Amino acid sequence: MERSLAELAAQVSGTVEGDGNLRIRGLASLEEAGPGELSFYGNPRYRKQLGTTRAAAVLLPPGEPVTRTDVAWVRVPSPHLAFARLLSLFHPGPRPAPGVHSRAEVHPSARMDPSATVMALAVVEAGAVVGARSVLWPGAYLGEGSRLGEDCVLQAGAVVRERCVLGDRVVLQPGVVVGSDGFGFAFDPAVPAHVKVPQVGTVRIEDDVEVGAGSCIDRATTGETFIGRGTKIDNLVQIAHNVRVGPLSIVCAQVGISGSTEVGAGVVLAGQVGIVGHVSVGDGARVAAGSGVPHDVPPGATVSGAPAVEHALWLRQSAALKQLPELLREVRELRARVAALESRKDEP
Amino acid sequence: MERSLAELAAQVSGTVEGDGNLRIRGLASLEEAGPGELSFYGNPRYRKQLGTTRAAAVLLPPGEPVTRTDVAWVRVPSPHLAFARLLSLFHPGPRPAPGVHSRAEVHPSARMDPSATVMALAVVEAGAVVGARSVLWPGAYLGEGSRLGEDCVLQAGAVVRERCVLGDRVVLQPGVVVGSDGFGFAFDPAVPAHVKVPQVGTVRIEDDVEVGAGSCIDRATTGETFIGRGTKIDNLVQIAHNVRVGPLSIVCAQVGISGSTEVGAGVVLAGQVGIVGHVSVGDGARVAAGSGVPHDVPPGATVSGAPAVEHALWLRQSAALKQLPELLREVRELRARVAALESRKDEP
Amino acid sequence: MERSLAELAAQVSGTVEGDGNLRIRGLASLEEAGPGELSFYGNPRYRKQLGTTRAAAVLLPPGEPVTRTDVAWVRVPSPHLAFARLLSLFHPGPRPAPGVHSRAEVHPSARMDPSATVMALAVVEAGAVVGARSVLWPGAYLGEGSRLGEDCVLQAGAVVRERCVLGDRVVLQPGVVVGSDGFGFAFDPAVPAHVKVPQVGTVRIEDDVEVGAGSCIDRATTGETFIGRGTKIDNLVQIAHNVRVGPLSIVCAQVGISGSTEVGAGVVLAGQVGIVGHVSVGDGARVAAGSGVPHDVPPGATVSGAPAVEHALWLRQSAALKQLPELLREVRELRARVAALESRKDEP
Repeated sequence: MERSLAELAAQVSGTVEGDGNLRIRGLASLEEAGPGELSFYGNPRYRKQLGTTRAAAVLLPPGEPVTRTDVAWVRVPSPHLAFARLLSLFHPGPRPAPGVHSRAEVHPSARMDPSATVMALAVVEAGAVVGARSVLWPGAYLGEGSRLGEDCVLQAGAVVRERCVLGDRVVLQPGVVVGSDGFGFAFDPAVPAHVKVPQVGTVRIEDDVEVGAGSCIDRATTGETFIGRGTKIDNLVQIAHNVRVGPLSIVCAQVGISGSTEVGAGVVLAGQVGIVGHVSVGDGARVAAGSGVPHDVPPGATVSGAPAVEHALWLRQSAALKQLPELLREVRELRARVAALESRKDEP
Repeated sequence: MERSLAELAAQVSGTVEGDGNLRIRGLASLEEAGPGELSFYGNPRYRKQLGTTRAAAVLLPPGEPVTRTDVAWVRVPSPHLAFARLLSLFHPGPRPAPGVHSRAEVHPSARMDPSATVMALAVVEAGAVVGARSVLWPGAYLGEGSRLGEDCVLQAGAVVRERCVLGDRVVLQPGVVVGSDGFGFAFDPAVPAHVKVPQVGTVRIEDDVEVGAGSCIDRATTGETFIGRGTKIDNLVQIAHNVRVGPLSIVCAQVGISGSTEVGAGVVLAGQVGIVGHVSVGDGARVAAGSGVPHDVPPGATVSGAPAVEHALWLRQSAALKQLPELLREVRELRARVAALESRKDEP
Repeated sequence: MERSLAELAAQVSGTVEGDGNLRIRGLASLEEAGPGELSFYGNPRYRKQLGTTRAAAVLLPPGEPVTRTDVAWVRVPSPHLAFARLLSLFHPGPRPAPGVHSRAEVHPSARMDPSATVMALAVVEAGAVVGARSVLWPGAYLGEGSRLGEDCVLQAGAVVRERCVLGDRVVLQPGVVVGSDGFGFAFDPAVPAHVKVPQVGTVRIEDDVEVGAGSCIDRATTGETFIGRGTKIDNLVQIAHNVRVGPLSIVCAQVGISGSTEVGAGVVLAGQVGIVGHVSVGDGARVAAGSGVPHDVPPGATVSGAPAVEHALWLRQSAALKQLPELLREVRELRARVAALESRKDEP
């Protein structure tokens, strides 16, 4: 299923610089690409690979100088975005046949759109709803009264417990858990025991959210845990009860967000960030990898470290930290010199 | 199923301040509650919401001044605990019908209490034991010779491998793994290879333990990995082989406890804490979120940071760290001033 | 199935110091071992237990002095390795009967070796290949066109999505996910939306790799995510798309490796380490627990901290950090003393 470079460029509103008649058979990274393949350049880290790639053509951002004549170029506003769209063209993805597998377990009271697919050993409980073209892969589980919108995907072994609501085009990778009990216990010194606070709330996930493998989104104590439209969540992320995440945010792998915390719109939480409970991270804020956030983060701020501080301060702190052993030596020496000065003063 | 406020107050040994005849139809947080709903106030963070809540009544701790006359109050020793108990009253939780689903797979040699429930696509292996009223949700797995006590819950997809022992009222959220192999390898330079150390021990979990979604408790190399009664474990926690956790401890999300470490009774490990292997965390110790614990923690201590130090010291360190860039500048300046003084001394 | 100590010593090329006719019935740790049991001593942390163990015999490294005469000793180059080999002797592990369970779901086009085992409720999709003696436990999933080599084990609920390739003797603990979509999105400001970059690559895992419970290995965007032979991965580890991990490395629990990063051969990543994307960790490097690695790590280096620095520097930094509050006080005092000296200088 080859296509001409010109045809591909047109798909992404790009401008060909070179031979538009080139036949392109697929896409690959700069390093992997070979003859007949299209690649993209978006990150200066890969400038070296740009000089050595065997790709037939490369997607290039505006202003990037062309350094080779043996490669055709397609100038686009965002090479990464263009690459994404063209990959979808070459790899439209599987569209499983509609219907319920004989070895799936679907409760008679569930409402299945006829175009939906439930594969072997998947389970749809009483009163659940599965929208048009949604797919449950083997071993996926949709709890009692939960609702999937249209074009959703529950990969193998993904679990959605009871009474959760997912919008359209929501994707859960394998092993995702939605609607597990929040971690709520009240200590009773008279027993003594940690008495469970029943978690009777739910989870609501808006359209176009994707959740990575093994991530967990707990149901609310009362009310709902909420993930806004278009937010993307990576693997092994923990989202506690009553958390609210705004739209179009990015939550990287192994992040933990504690109970009742609010994360705004367009926020980026890098890998392994931890946020305490009951705080607010403002719209557009960015939290660097591994940071621990113990308090509110203002909108638009970039913070780093544990405890997280404004990023510029963190950079100065980190640089200073490297000099700390030397500083200790220096102060010890200054002390001696000052003492010497003082004693000389006392001399007659 | 409305109840009078006086009736609810009596359930939690509380004292009504206001109209005990109010009809209460449910419970909610201060922010979510509306007419006919009861809420609770336990955390000063929510004082603002206490002033604006539309709740009909609020559970209040001793000594907290009453500021509004349009709300009824119920004075209780612990509002959070009272809220937990009343939530259970309003939401008694599902009690699935006893029996083995025709699409469950239960080995003939397993011993099932007739009041237990095994749902579709759950598996109970040879020689396993399931106690009274215990429930395996779809896709849950109980390995060969493993034992569940009474009133246990294995949520969808929870896995208990062979020869593990769980007490009464143990709850495993979806995706929990109990009894996976510990991470034990011995390096053989002659191959070279990391040779697997067979993990032939087991896991024992006492009564009233709850384990959060996606958490893993590895089986012991020999002997047992042990979780004491009433301990609560949050999501995505890693508990390595031969770890021992005492009773009534709290292990928050994404904590990792390395092999053979002992955690005492009533310990609190906040989110994303990491503890190295072969150390001991004493009874009643508290470890702050994100801390890395490289050594023993004495009973009752509160530690923070990575490497973790006594919390008061950590607070001083963190405060000092913010001043470090300024300190560097200052020492540089002092050095110049001392040099100036020294050179003046040398003047005749 | 008792064996003589001499026979066991011969199995591991050890030398008996004491009674080789002792009958040994099993193995246990120094603390747990009782009469008739063999233990091992490899870590000086356990010297106390060596003095008090009730074991009949103990595996001992070269040079370690013998302190008791009531215990027999077996001198071996590596007690841990010898213990591993002898444990395998006493506990050969289950060998499930070959064949496909009537309640497994195996696609007619899958190629199953007749010696392989597929248990109840496991799924093998179209075109998948299962090698000799490989075992899928209940609920395990092997996606379309994926290939398992010989003697592989997919524990309960382990998921391998489509087109992944696993070598021989690969072990996936329960809840492992291989081949989930990488976390790739390109922002389209015109919508606005994070547009999914289709993840059309795959995962390749070489021989003798073990992956711990709940760990996730994402498929590549294009090309492959790769785990080299003999590498061992602990629980709840995140390995992002297009990561490459060399042979014989050790990746401890809750580590996260971001996209396109390369980890060399024989590397040790301790627990909860995080590594950013697009960097390289050289052969034989060691990264201490909880470290955050923002840049390349040279071969053979040992690094610690966040951001990670050379370990010796980190030790000095950590020590200095403890003195920082004191240092602040001291500099404040020095400032006053220098000011006093300066003002005295000005005196006539």
